[in-house]
Amino acid sequence: MDISERVRDIARSNESPFVVMDLDIVEDNYDQLIKDISGVRVFYAVKANSHPKIIKRLYDLGSSFDVASRGEIEMLLNMGIPGSRLSFGNTIKKEEDIRFAFNKGINYFAADAEMELEKIARNAPGAQVYLRLAMNGSDSDWPLSRKFGTNIDHVKKLVVYANDLGLAPIGVSFHVGSQCYDKYSWKDALMQVADIFWFAKLEGIKMTTINLGGGIPVKYVRDIPTVAEIANVINESIDEYFNFTERPTLFIEPGRSMVGNAGILVSRVLLRSSKEKKDWVYIDAGVYHGLMETIENLRYTVVVDGKDDHPKKTFTLAGPTCDSIDVVYDEVELPEDVTLGDIVYFVNAGAYTLDYKTHFNGIEGPYALFLDEVTVRSTHETNVADS
Amino acid sequence: MDISERVRDIARSNESPFVVMDLDIVEDNYDQLIKDISGVRVFYAVKANSHPKIIKRLYDLGSSFDVASRGEIEMLLNMGIPGSRLSFGNTIKKEEDIRFAFNKGINYFAADAEMELEKIARNAPGAQVYLRLAMNGSDSDWPLSRKFGTNIDHVKKLVVYANDLGLAPIGVSFHVGSQCYDKYSWKDALMQVADIFWFAKLEGIKMTTINLGGGIPVKYVRDIPTVAEIANVINESIDEYFNFTERPTLFIEPGRSMVGNAGILVSRVLLRSSKEKKDWVYIDAGVYHGLMETIENLRYTVVVDGKDDHPKKTFTLAGPTCDSIDVVYDEVELPEDVTLGDIVYFVNAGAYTLDYKTHFNGIEGPYALFLDEVTVRSTHETNVADS
Repeated sequence: MDISERVRDIARSNESPFVVMDLDIVEDNYDQLIKDISGVRVFYAVKANSHPKIIKRLYDLGSSFDVASRGEIEMLLNMGIPGSRLSFGNTIKKEEDIRFAFNKGINYFAADAEMELEKIARNAPGAQVYLRLAMNGSDSDWPLSRKFGTNIDHVKKLVVYANDLGLAPIGVSFHVGSQCYDKYSWKDALMQVADIFWFAKLEGIKMTTINLGGGIPVKYVRDIPTVAEIANVINESIDEYFNFTERPTLFIEPGRSMVGNAGILVSRVLLRSSKEKKDWVYIDAGVYHGLMETIENLRYTVVVDGKDDHPKKTFTLAGPTCDSIDVVYDEVELPEDVTLGDIVYFVNAGAYTLDYKTHFNGIEGPYALFLDEVTVRSTHETNVADS
Repeated sequence: MDISERVRDIARSNESPFVVMDLDIVEDNYDQLIKDISGVRVFYAVKANSHPKIIKRLYDLGSSFDVASRGEIEMLLNMGIPGSRLSFGNTIKKEEDIRFAFNKGINYFAADAEMELEKIARNAPGAQVYLRLAMNGSDSDWPLSRKFGTNIDHVKKLVVYANDLGLAPIGVSFHVGSQCYDKYSWKDALMQVADIFWFAKLEGIKMTTINLGGGIPVKYVRDIPTVAEIANVINESIDEYFNFTERPTLFIEPGRSMVGNAGILVSRVLLRSSKEKKDWVYIDAGVYHGLMETIENLRYTVVVDGKDDHPKKTFTLAGPTCDSIDVVYDEVELPEDVTLGDIVYFVNAGAYTLDYKTHFNGIEGPYALFLDEVTVRSTHETNVADS
């Protein structure tokens, strides 16, 4: 998402911090995924940005949803979205939430352990489950395999166990790791999934569905493979590895890649200081207020309004709380004349900014503004009209 | 705080996760500080646990409050606490919040930079300020000096600058680092403060107030100095270093030490699994839901209800979200037969558990229960009566 004149106008005329979102970009992201990956069904990962306007737009486009908890399920049901559009993708579920979900018509459940299958069998008898395969997550910013998923031999055992419990083990899910840079990670995963499907076929269990998970990267600083490139790898791998069975149904659970580039976080400088030969800039967003992913080393492009082309120097950039963890970047290049009141943009910050926030220190985190509903006096246009 | 039978009864009969708090322990902590440090005025650091019942009890005991933001100020004012009981201790303040605070009768402001003094002078003319001295924070779990405070030479310049701006530089604050293990850290700080007071005296500026900050430790796993031991060091240092002036007024800003040992976090096991030769236990509290300090290496004592004396083995303990960061401990000793539904206690978890939480994944963080107002059928007493 570009820092357009309209975005700058909005930034200058609204109290910070906030995230300005462009729903048309979300729509473009959805359309591209549908177009590029043959026959894929999108389950948007609600956790990435649970704002109702984003959910609504995606629902109208035909999206389904990956939900992590009863809280997310209730929010979507209350918006009129039927349970048939939801998949309960968290592998760590409360038993009563499984029962609640099943009673509301949700029929996809994830699992990576015997005990989770037993919980599902008790509370959602006969439900469709997909078993989560662990990938090594190499060359992704947040490999997820340590906490989620299990190895291929264990997945095969779980397929049989699910079947024994009266569940329908329809598929396998995997996640290459959040913000994955290597398009061949998907190929590696699909080869393993094919091996599991083949095993199941020999066991007389019909598996039909591959859940491709998330992991499609968003452009922050480092170069990324395009969606089309990743989709090509997926399409070719399906053709190559699944010729022994009918073409599998494909699910995908994009979160970051659906909303990341559709938002810009807008903050303001509260203080600049020099101490111990270091220069500090403090802003009104921070680790506890929208920028939590920065302590996990996410590097956003940071731009100071009106000073884009000024000479730069190195600063430490920190948030507004009385907490030493609340340091956004130890070293970041900012205009050397950055000062009190300057607007600081974090580009492509539409994911994991509105939902990670706390109320710590009594400080509100960023709120959301949508390009299509903000009316703002354009300083640019006014200047033109005045001239 | 002990895991008493009453706590166990409450744990067994309430939905988790929650923090059970004992206000009498908060009162004991307050009383001990007042008794041990001669003439000290307590400003409770609201950020550690901002629950209104805790604020109310401390206010009734005579406490003042260290506030970090307009949000905290408004909450306390709305409870009927006058601005004269508040100190705006955050060194990174919004200008409009300074003005708001000053108009509400707050007259203590912290600063560690020229620009912050200018903001205070513009919005709270003539206000009393204390300058924050940076300590090295050695032998504390969270040294705060990197982000807050500045060195002694800079503090002296700020004293003069504040005076030139028409402010009243009445004192110096410091913070030895959160959870500080070395009682002599306070002695080191006070020697430096005395040097600043002496400098100010020569400049014709009268400084009267020492803000001892926070940092008094809470017992988690490692042994800690007692409050009495720390108080002795403080009292002796005041006598030793400040004989050139009238006895300074002492402020202290305890947060963790006022509430940490007054709470127990209660969670339940959602899943147990084995994969890649590691054993995992997943609970309904986690990094995003009450246990954020664990990713900063805080080691709580972890107890599984009813299995205190069972043989132990090593587990990885993780939270309930679809996020790989949400791992509480990579290695922790738990009863080898820990399983679904077991209650897991985190001892001395009254600080930074209720206030750090997010709503991430649509999951609610822990709520608060107070020992004095929970009515619960005691399983223990009932068993006795039944027999």
